[in-house]
Amino acid sequence: MRDEFRAELEAVSQLLVEMAEGVREALRQATRALLAADRRAAESVIEQDAEIDARYRQVEERVCDLLARQAPVAGDLRAMITALHVAADLERMGDLADHVAKTALRRHPSPAVPAELRPVFTDMANIADRMAEKIASVLAHPDADLAAELDSDDDAMDELHKGLFGVLLGADWPYGVETAIDATLLGRFYERFADHAVNSGEHVVYLITGEPVTPA
Amino acid sequence: MRDEFRAELEAVSQLLVEMAEGVREALRQATRALLAADRRAAESVIEQDAEIDARYRQVEERVCDLLARQAPVAGDLRAMITALHVAADLERMGDLADHVAKTALRRHPSPAVPAELRPVFTDMANIADRMAEKIASVLAHPDADLAAELDSDDDAMDELHKGLFGVLLGADWPYGVETAIDATLLGRFYERFADHAVNSGEHVVYLITGEPVTPA
Repeated sequence: MRDEFRAELEAVSQLLVEMAEGVREALRQATRALLAADRRAAESVIEQDAEIDARYRQVEERVCDLLARQAPVAGDLRAMITALHVAADLERMGDLADHVAKTALRRHPSPAVPAELRPVFTDMANIADRMAEKIASVLAHPDADLAAELDSDDDAMDELHKGLFGVLLGADWPYGVETAIDATLLGRFYERFADHAVNSGEHVVYLITGEPVTPA
Repeated sequence: MRDEFRAELEAVSQLLVEMAEGVREALRQATRALLAADRRAAESVIEQDAEIDARYRQVEERVCDLLARQAPVAGDLRAMITALHVAADLERMGDLADHVAKTALRRHPSPAVPAELRPVFTDMANIADRMAEKIASVLAHPDADLAAELDSDDDAMDELHKGLFGVLLGADWPYGVETAIDATLLGRFYERFADHAVNSGEHVVYLITGEPVTPA
């Protein structure tokens, strides 16, 4: 019974790792769609979102099945609830990559992001990528220190996000309201992606250390 | 044992109803802060968010405690998982009300929303309020038909959201980029509030009918 539980838990963890890798790849491709006006990259993100959603449902089903059949308590129960939380965050991160891809597609073949904003979106995408990589890593090999690093990554993301508004609100912003609206939403998508990565990391830390998560 | 489970489940439902009423009131006050530049209303929303978060943690603790002590199966287990999902959606709706309040506060004593946009934000706020009311209602008295109405409310919200961009992108938008950015983010906050209400409703429908929820 105990071995079976461990094997099932391992299968759930594996699904979460695949979800994390999937959303990481989705945001990488969405960023390529955005910065290189790459239509196929955008379409690929949108298609792949269904796979992320399917894995989310698999996590839910397996967790519910495990709860019903094995009635875990203490740390095992906590692992189940954590899996649900992390899966929900990852599913949402996939949606946000999808939103970036759709924004790129809406403007295609024009670039959705003008030259002045390419550096800030490149930096935001790099931080988001690093965060998704860390989530995949701590899900595969629980590591509270690595998970805790997500907080400082998120601080860097918030700084970039503020900097983005600085450019948009500069006296010499030449691109008009539509481009400013797109950039505002895109900035929000990357920033929310990072927030969900932080949430996932906090849930993993809770799992490892027992320190509760405080909702933002 | 069975009676004790029912009583505990009832206590969880009651917390969810209180959360739903809390986020409804939070968004009402946030809207007042926004449209009447009411500083005290904004501050009150920000203070009350801690109460919504506290109730969220209480739901989580009670559900985990119930899962550990009673090991529910079938419909009872489903009710527990639904409670976690709904609590997460409601917690996020509280955050979005908080974001509206903070946007109002950042521009205070100026209004964050110019006269041209007051009607669309008034309509969005009214729909969001109706949706929060329905969530509170179906949590108190499960009703799949009422929960399903949230979908058409959300369609109305999406139409208003599109209309908002129509105004912002009109050739005669006189308020510049900063006001357009605020309006873009505010529009997104109301629209996401409605999305989470739809999610909550879907989870309640699942609880009542057994029809699974499809992630957006």
